[in-house]
Amino acid sequence: MPESATSDHALRLKALRDQLVKDGVDGFIIPRTDEHQGEYVPPQAQRLAWMSGFTGSAGLGVVLTDSAAVFVDGRYTIQVRQEVDETLYTYKHLIEEPAHEWLSEQVKPGMRIAYDSWLQSENQIKTLRKGVEKAGGELVALDINPVDAVWSDQPARPCTKSMPYDLKHAGKSSREKRDEIATILKDGEADCAVLSLPDSVAWLLNVRGEDVAHTPLVLSFAVIHDDGSVQWFVDSEKVTSETMAALDNQIEIAEPGALESRLVSFAREGKSVLVDPATCPERITSVLEKNGAKLVRAMDPVMKPKARKNTTELDGIRAAHIRDGAAMVRFLKWVTETAEKRAETDNPVTEIEAAYKLQAIREGVSLFRDISFDTISGAGPNGAMCHYKVSEESSIPLSMDEIFLIDSGGQFLDGTTDITRTVIIGAPTDEMKDRFTRVLMGHISLATAKFPKGTNGMQLDSLARRPLWDAGLDFDHGTGHGVGCFLGVHEGPQRIAKASSPVALEPGMFLSNEPGYYKAGEYGIRIENLIIVRDIGQMVGLDTPLYDFETVTLCPIDLRLIEPSIMSAGEIRWLNDYHAWVREELTPLLDAEHVTWLEEATKAI
Amino acid sequence: MPESATSDHALRLKALRDQLVKDGVDGFIIPRTDEHQGEYVPPQAQRLAWMSGFTGSAGLGVVLTDSAAVFVDGRYTIQVRQEVDETLYTYKHLIEEPAHEWLSEQVKPGMRIAYDSWLQSENQIKTLRKGVEKAGGELVALDINPVDAVWSDQPARPCTKSMPYDLKHAGKSSREKRDEIATILKDGEADCAVLSLPDSVAWLLNVRGEDVAHTPLVLSFAVIHDDGSVQWFVDSEKVTSETMAALDNQIEIAEPGALESRLVSFAREGKSVLVDPATCPERITSVLEKNGAKLVRAMDPVMKPKARKNTTELDGIRAAHIRDGAAMVRFLKWVTETAEKRAETDNPVTEIEAAYKLQAIREGVSLFRDISFDTISGAGPNGAMCHYKVSEESSIPLSMDEIFLIDSGGQFLDGTTDITRTVIIGAPTDEMKDRFTRVLMGHISLATAKFPKGTNGMQLDSLARRPLWDAGLDFDHGTGHGVGCFLGVHEGPQRIAKASSPVALEPGMFLSNEPGYYKAGEYGIRIENLIIVRDIGQMVGLDTPLYDFETVTLCPIDLRLIEPSIMSAGEIRWLNDYHAWVREELTPLLDAEHVTWLEEATKAI
Repeated sequence: MPESATSDHALRLKALRDQLVKDGVDGFIIPRTDEHQGEYVPPQAQRLAWMSGFTGSAGLGVVLTDSAAVFVDGRYTIQVRQEVDETLYTYKHLIEEPAHEWLSEQVKPGMRIAYDSWLQSENQIKTLRKGVEKAGGELVALDINPVDAVWSDQPARPCTKSMPYDLKHAGKSSREKRDEIATILKDGEADCAVLSLPDSVAWLLNVRGEDVAHTPLVLSFAVIHDDGSVQWFVDSEKVTSETMAALDNQIEIAEPGALESRLVSFAREGKSVLVDPATCPERITSVLEKNGAKLVRAMDPVMKPKARKNTTELDGIRAAHIRDGAAMVRFLKWVTETAEKRAETDNPVTEIEAAYKLQAIREGVSLFRDISFDTISGAGPNGAMCHYKVSEESSIPLSMDEIFLIDSGGQFLDGTTDITRTVIIGAPTDEMKDRFTRVLMGHISLATAKFPKGTNGMQLDSLARRPLWDAGLDFDHGTGHGVGCFLGVHEGPQRIAKASSPVALEPGMFLSNEPGYYKAGEYGIRIENLIIVRDIGQMVGLDTPLYDFETVTLCPIDLRLIEPSIMSAGEIRWLNDYHAWVREELTPLLDAEHVTWLEEATKAI
Repeated sequence: MPESATSDHALRLKALRDQLVKDGVDGFIIPRTDEHQGEYVPPQAQRLAWMSGFTGSAGLGVVLTDSAAVFVDGRYTIQVRQEVDETLYTYKHLIEEPAHEWLSEQVKPGMRIAYDSWLQSENQIKTLRKGVEKAGGELVALDINPVDAVWSDQPARPCTKSMPYDLKHAGKSSREKRDEIATILKDGEADCAVLSLPDSVAWLLNVRGEDVAHTPLVLSFAVIHDDGSVQWFVDSEKVTSETMAALDNQIEIAEPGALESRLVSFAREGKSVLVDPATCPERITSVLEKNGAKLVRAMDPVMKPKARKNTTELDGIRAAHIRDGAAMVRFLKWVTETAEKRAETDNPVTEIEAAYKLQAIREGVSLFRDISFDTISGAGPNGAMCHYKVSEESSIPLSMDEIFLIDSGGQFLDGTTDITRTVIIGAPTDEMKDRFTRVLMGHISLATAKFPKGTNGMQLDSLARRPLWDAGLDFDHGTGHGVGCFLGVHEGPQRIAKASSPVALEPGMFLSNEPGYYKAGEYGIRIENLIIVRDIGQMVGLDTPLYDFETVTLCPIDLRLIEPSIMSAGEIRWLNDYHAWVREELTPLLDAEHVTWLEEATKAI
């Protein structure tokens, strides 16, 4: 770690502790999230990174008078050691040694531990409060964030221009969507709901922005009422005349600073207000409660309707995936051929070169707006870190006889893509082929599953793991996450995972199918396609609908890594059918040279 | 419905309503359970059956001044119509139209709805209270159960003789078990725990009894302290000198009537008391709370240690299954041969004859004490009712070319058995073979699963359903339930089911593997073996243990119902290996004629 960084972080920690003394408290909790609980956080809200140096996408810091800790999950246990000075912060596991337990050991009776009630949800604060109170301490909200108080060169909040999201892509007018949510509110006996998730706001109002990287969000809050009217609390500079023209007269624009006083009025009018205790800032919940609102605690009412894509969105998603698939073919041809050619030279292809190359190819695709997340480009051992983010410093060459994993995606106006392919540079070992084939078998098992209405992703998860479990193998991440439509590459509530995911899958839900296998220090394997839940009729003799998945990602799966002898006839048939479809759809978009490569890459086995 | 029965139930309903007026309340809730929340309830506690006529194993009645309802689950929607007079009680679905929702519609503001706080748990009462209060009513506990008050010929509480459960079967002394629970209490920061489940008491004290049918229980309560000492609240007449001699001096015997005053003393001493809010009578929770106890709400601490069978129990279970398997072979030979021979005569084999025959064969097996539940013996359409209980009235003949399903088990001193076999009398249709084979493929998929430590039964459930889902089929019950060792044929917390079962499977847990398929009005198919969770080493390259299942049930699976062409080579191998093992283990217990039959029934396909 460079000396200057250490000093900076030591000085910042000292400054924060001095500020805590001024504020009359004995500690402060620094979440990685901002008010909107999103994965991408604008620079001004990257308080944990500024304080500690930790730049991962999830985490939490706690600073007490004599001790401090940074809590990170399994993805970041190595990275935190590289980024955070251990003489300043202890490293803790976010899940196995959670902050509330650490607080219950560290806090002394009478201590006052502070937090910023805008940055954490009611559920999060409840858990932390239990830990602090168990130790005889008190958890208190501060009006001014003490990190902001000492962060003299803190950037400004982002203020990018918003744009309307055209009906030809959205498929449903904001008016229609608001009527749908209004009905949900009436059914749930709420007069209105606070929306704090910016992708909920973006979907509901059919607007997009550029406030954070890789997700077209307008950071803002909204309140929707049971007549479909909305107050949109958004910096007026973000609302272009184009956006304004697309909004109807049921939408009132108000400055973010007005949110709290408006909530107070709603509360005093005795309104019952829906808040999502898992995502809504505790500040909002407590302001409402203190001023007499009747709280209806429930899931953000926009989440499920947003998750069930409409037919226009689905058509857009399919179209975006065809164009994205052609881009991937151009990339895969380049990377496999070029990496082998240059492998033994002094100018080998590197991970970062590959990531830039793929981005450059995608940038040429029509309706492309951004990549949908930082590309994971992992050669050999780097691929074994399943959330590895390549940088100039970390980038290594793609070497002969090693596996290369690339997980990437695009934000297209008509849909979001997210795809992982794993290829061999040179020749694979038998073990690599066995592992790759098992991952593929799990992928196919999920891709071909049929299941009755009411089935959730936890029930289906084991289908994708079974071929790995059979050999005593597994992977330490979810099998599938929800995906938005020109919105977040990660969205809820749908998911396919070991951990409880009680939300039943419904037609139109859009998810990833991405089993993997990671051998520490050697290689990583992941095969990721996106899938749509589809209604295919009724169960035999029952009124229950039967569902399956439609795969929409089009891109060859590396045949050189497949060991057909461990696959069933049905699995081989799926692979050949998939490849025939990929070839048929992508050929018209490619030149002769790429068509030749694609034919070889998708030939029947 | 016979006229007299109707009159009886009408008179009883009138008498109860008169009593409610005397008690100053407007309604009363009548659960099917007694104080111990068990599946088998002694005659004196069968209040719902006495009031309404409904004899199913789960349900709830609610009697209001002007209306009354009986709530039953999917298993009993037909039976309730046959047993309960619809002019007296409305039929409701226990899960889809639950009592608390019905109450929230029926109750008028100011109404007082009563319940017996001994008969329902805190969780159950919480839900009901919400419904009543939503409607502006009040839920109140009555000291004397008004059904008991009007039930003039109510039987006495059962008072059978208990017996010690020998160490050679139990494998662990009560002392050892109590030390184990004491450690759990210390870890959970509880001074003591109330045990209200009689199988927890039976396991902990190594005692058995005959207070209810088919499960060797001594109905009683116990309190265990963190030093391992126990107060056993049990009718002293149940405690034979033999039982007494087997108990050590850490166990104090007290009359059940003393429980409440002892709880009051513990509470006043400021003890922290563990109660299971899902199973412990609300009476106990509220007495403790009112008198100042610190409540620790957690799962009954005996459940998990009881679920993880020790090696002596596992050896006993295996031995019991070998003897039970030989009995099943004798029965299957008799039933298939005799049913076909007599099918077209005027003396066909009937369902009830088959059930009695099997029971008679089992009664001749060493260490047999009782059947472990009422035999389900279902021919043709009766087999399609998955919890069909055969009676003299319902019994139909086993006809040619029909499927016969028999689900039965024994309580042996060394273990409890539970097995379902489905056989064809005559010849099956192609559809029957397809369905049977899919059920078998699901059974094999679960039987052969390997999975990492931490996996729960909800994750594994879909493996057993997949071959059925593939054809748009499913079954409407769990795939596997926990089983006791010379205790309940149903025990928690382990299970394999669609519904949330968050408890991870652990080595030694004993469960059923019983997928099925039911075609209403035609036939039912179920293949049930019992399985034990086993530790088979480590995951590749990880510290995580890898588990699988050991199948312990030995009995042929009807080859005439199998369609090998839809099975994989691995599935056929499993079946042949299973049958070879069955043949090898059972041959020594059978005479020549049965050995010949077994050889044919287990030949490789």
